[in-house]
Amino acid sequence: MSVHRVYLPDLGHGDFEPGAVLEITGQEARHAVRVKRLMPGDVLEILNGQGLRAVAVLGESRKHPAGHGKTEWAVDVRIESVAQEPPISPRLHVLACAPKLTRVEDMVDQLSQVGAAAWFPLVTRHTLTPPKAERVDKLERVAAEAAKQCGRAWTMEIGSPVPLADALSRTHRAIRPSARLVIADPRGAPYSPDGSTDLALLIGPEAGFTDDEVDAACRAGAMLCSIGPHLMRVGTAAVVASGLILNAEQPR
Amino acid sequence: MSVHRVYLPDLGHGDFEPGAVLEITGQEARHAVRVKRLMPGDVLEILNGQGLRAVAVLGESRKHPAGHGKTEWAVDVRIESVAQEPPISPRLHVLACAPKLTRVEDMVDQLSQVGAAAWFPLVTRHTLTPPKAERVDKLERVAAEAAKQCGRAWTMEIGSPVPLADALSRTHRAIRPSARLVIADPRGAPYSPDGSTDLALLIGPEAGFTDDEVDAACRAGAMLCSIGPHLMRVGTAAVVASGLILNAEQPR
Repeated sequence: MSVHRVYLPDLGHGDFEPGAVLEITGQEARHAVRVKRLMPGDVLEILNGQGLRAVAVLGESRKHPAGHGKTEWAVDVRIESVAQEPPISPRLHVLACAPKLTRVEDMVDQLSQVGAAAWFPLVTRHTLTPPKAERVDKLERVAAEAAKQCGRAWTMEIGSPVPLADALSRTHRAIRPSARLVIADPRGAPYSPDGSTDLALLIGPEAGFTDDEVDAACRAGAMLCSIGPHLMRVGTAAVVASGLILNAEQPR
Repeated sequence: MSVHRVYLPDLGHGDFEPGAVLEITGQEARHAVRVKRLMPGDVLEILNGQGLRAVAVLGESRKHPAGHGKTEWAVDVRIESVAQEPPISPRLHVLACAPKLTRVEDMVDQLSQVGAAAWFPLVTRHTLTPPKAERVDKLERVAAEAAKQCGRAWTMEIGSPVPLADALSRTHRAIRPSARLVIADPRGAPYSPDGSTDLALLIGPEAGFTDDEVDAACRAGAMLCSIGPHLMRVGTAAVVASGLILNAEQPR
């Protein structure tokens, strides 16, 4: 059994001195006590999504009045140790066209699990409409939930739409000037690592990049990279390509 | 736009002589004419899931009486060319514990896209119940649909449950005696290809393999292979590990 994790994005490093006792309320408290049925003395892990990982021990739990005759759970946890982890290296920004309906949530969930630093909806000639603002809130919750499940110390960022031209000219903040550009394309070569610590992966829409778009990417220095024997849908292509890149660029 | 594909698993190679005219009925006929609105002269591709890939041109379409006052669509297609493709190499059998609910369908769909030869539900100490027989029918439809979408000439096989001990002793038909055994585990080394043409990938349940199970796998010669910086859920781990192996073992 893996350790139970609590996600507290509003807390900073200063709130987590070893020995301190912290009161947790809201959904995270209720989930720990009522769903997971943790008991005093049980160990849990606290993440804030910004690199902090604290080990804590559960203390007393109680119900607070929460107005309108309702109550909410509160639990005390005693901090045992605190560490601040660096973000995953290499830093992989995935610029992928948003797939349809709930598939965009599945993609965000899987990119979080595999270890991408951020996802930005890519806008190309054949792109469907990027997710609306209210959808972004939901996607941020999906990324946070995946971070909890996988024990990611840094939550994956959900960015705003990036036109392909801005990505290729590296004028968009999603792409650092030194980043290696990789574009998934069946005409490409197998991925070969070059020690990059910053990468931007471009994944086209279901209908594909146009020939002009691929030409422009090549002129901008993008590596055309084949990622398998078949065509894949956007979400699968994004997670498979991310897995290839992150594993290939890991220090050995 | 990609070419429209028709999936006809009941037809063999002999039914596809170039120049022959074939009548297609049922859902595939209706889908081509009413949903995709293909017109006479349009080109389509026919797959039988067993390596056959035929290029055909649409002819006339008509409605047949289908009993009970209903009608069904029928379309004529003229075969232009026929090819028999070999299965994907390397042949990757994925033995992964079945995830919960619809996640098993998502996993089968993604393993099909990435190019696995077969999926077998792995049974370990902490495995949930493997899918029931009626579920297998549904999973075979998911695999066939993914084959159509990705243009896979060979449909991924859905196998019956394999106990871990049978997989490790290579007494189960899912594992050829010469197959390389790979087990996804965070303690492992990065995947390195060795030119294997036959592989069996073992993916544990959400609760993980037990230490005894991992020890037994190592004694059986399995390679412990790390697949990323985080823990992943079963379906994501299976598709990421498959992508790593299939791409690493591709001839370059």
